[in-house]
Amino acid sequence: MLYLYTARDADHLASLLRDALPGIELAAWPQDVDYSKVRYLVAWNPPEGFFARLPKLQAVFALGAGVDRMLARPDLPRQVPVIRLTDAGMARQMAEYVLYGVLRHQRHFDLYQQQQARHDWKPLPPKLVHEVRVSVLGLGAIGAVVAQTLAEFGYAVSGWSRRPKALPGVRYHHGPDGLEDLLAETDVLVGVLPSTPETRGLIDHRRLARLPRGATLINVGRGDQVDESALLEMLETGHLRFAQLDVFANEPLPAESPLWDRHDVAITPHIAAITLHGPAVEQIADNLRALQRGEVPAGLVDRAQAY
Amino acid sequence: MLYLYTARDADHLASLLRDALPGIELAAWPQDVDYSKVRYLVAWNPPEGFFARLPKLQAVFALGAGVDRMLARPDLPRQVPVIRLTDAGMARQMAEYVLYGVLRHQRHFDLYQQQQARHDWKPLPPKLVHEVRVSVLGLGAIGAVVAQTLAEFGYAVSGWSRRPKALPGVRYHHGPDGLEDLLAETDVLVGVLPSTPETRGLIDHRRLARLPRGATLINVGRGDQVDESALLEMLETGHLRFAQLDVFANEPLPAESPLWDRHDVAITPHIAAITLHGPAVEQIADNLRALQRGEVPAGLVDRAQAY
Repeated sequence: MLYLYTARDADHLASLLRDALPGIELAAWPQDVDYSKVRYLVAWNPPEGFFARLPKLQAVFALGAGVDRMLARPDLPRQVPVIRLTDAGMARQMAEYVLYGVLRHQRHFDLYQQQQARHDWKPLPPKLVHEVRVSVLGLGAIGAVVAQTLAEFGYAVSGWSRRPKALPGVRYHHGPDGLEDLLAETDVLVGVLPSTPETRGLIDHRRLARLPRGATLINVGRGDQVDESALLEMLETGHLRFAQLDVFANEPLPAESPLWDRHDVAITPHIAAITLHGPAVEQIADNLRALQRGEVPAGLVDRAQAY
Repeated sequence: MLYLYTARDADHLASLLRDALPGIELAAWPQDVDYSKVRYLVAWNPPEGFFARLPKLQAVFALGAGVDRMLARPDLPRQVPVIRLTDAGMARQMAEYVLYGVLRHQRHFDLYQQQQARHDWKPLPPKLVHEVRVSVLGLGAIGAVVAQTLAEFGYAVSGWSRRPKALPGVRYHHGPDGLEDLLAETDVLVGVLPSTPETRGLIDHRRLARLPRGATLINVGRGDQVDESALLEMLETGHLRFAQLDVFANEPLPAESPLWDRHDVAITPHIAAITLHGPAVEQIADNLRALQRGEVPAGLVDRAQAY
């Protein structure tokens, strides 16, 4: 039995899953089920202890791409494979969100907004698309689409990731030294990394200071990659010009965070990419069938790497 | 003799013109010249009475696309051809500017900015790219590129112009009735029209009221197309959600304009597209050579149509 455990849009997801997996018995929350029959779980963040109630659990299908919170749970059995969504319409949305932030930097929309507040009519020297150097940290299924969308639009795009990865039109850097070199030549830094022990705190005071004065930061990966107090200091001194943030160390962002009131920070409530039902169900069905055939499903999480 | 009359970047433009037109004698402001020798003038907005001082003037090359102010001058002889720039890198810049405004609407960046001011963390229902209906008024050299860029990005784009014009992926409307029908099905209205007797005041109270509630207006054409008091009323009642304005009835926008302080208006100081020297000089040189061969230059202004 496949059990769908989500409070959000459960009916719609259940009907799509039923159509995509005709041979599989399906139940959906809040329906009462015999937990001992559940072999497959489709879920996002079930309550503490939930996994421990499923003795026959063979696989967990996460309804998203970032599984760091799920993997950190003590009730998730070590031997049960976790399969995450690798795109499901998210890459396209991320690319839109990031392009908006890069256009804001290139076309000085943030500076014009500050001028508007002063009723100040003053054209600024234009910057052409190819003059803006954008660096994308993280070149997974989503980061790669973000980098390529920006490159096709005409920006000078570089990418950085742990593992080497070649993308048309995107300059490539990897490893810690590669990052140091890259930062010094970056006008807009874009974080699309997953949350792993290696990426936590990666964008710290020292690395932000490597960026040229007047750079913009866009973070759509995970909030714990950025040292928020270092970020605030860099904005305060004007070393950073602007930050567009969709993710934060603590979410929802606490009402008392000093980020809210800054004119050089744009805050969105973790909406850069929302899982779309159609492609999500398609991926889950493909991955479940791959598991049943004894194959390795596309979104299988490497528990050691945490994504 | 070709006389370059502009205070802005005169040296750079002069050296490019010299390279592009090796056979032509060239002088540039503030250099003193014998006005009776000037046959060709490259200029933007020379002082009142300037044209009258040039008895042998054979053609005026405008350093921009919108020639409405120049044509309205009493000192410009009726029989002298005026040749405007038809693109010169402007279309690409316009497309960037407009895409930013459409992304703001689609991804609710304006609404999230209002929420940020209240420290309010609340995801809004997402809108997918193909669900946003964008209508571009004006399909000249610039409007066509704007419409096609948006269509390629995935928006549902319609175009409207006086003369029929077919563009791949863009639904086409024309004439007054076409406009009425189009407005009722428009989420983002984009003005890229020149200033002519026919377009002045086109976007008035009645037509803004035809837009569905919650629409966004982007104006990069000419300010006199939009009735600013009607626009303010529509924003006040919430019928319009947002306006991104690069052009105004009076420029610079007067410091006392009520537009400056609105959170639902973004103001930029007529910078959506700036003439790029390289492509501008190329067009001027091509057009001048066409004139000398007795051909019709590409940017020749129809004085009756005013563009």
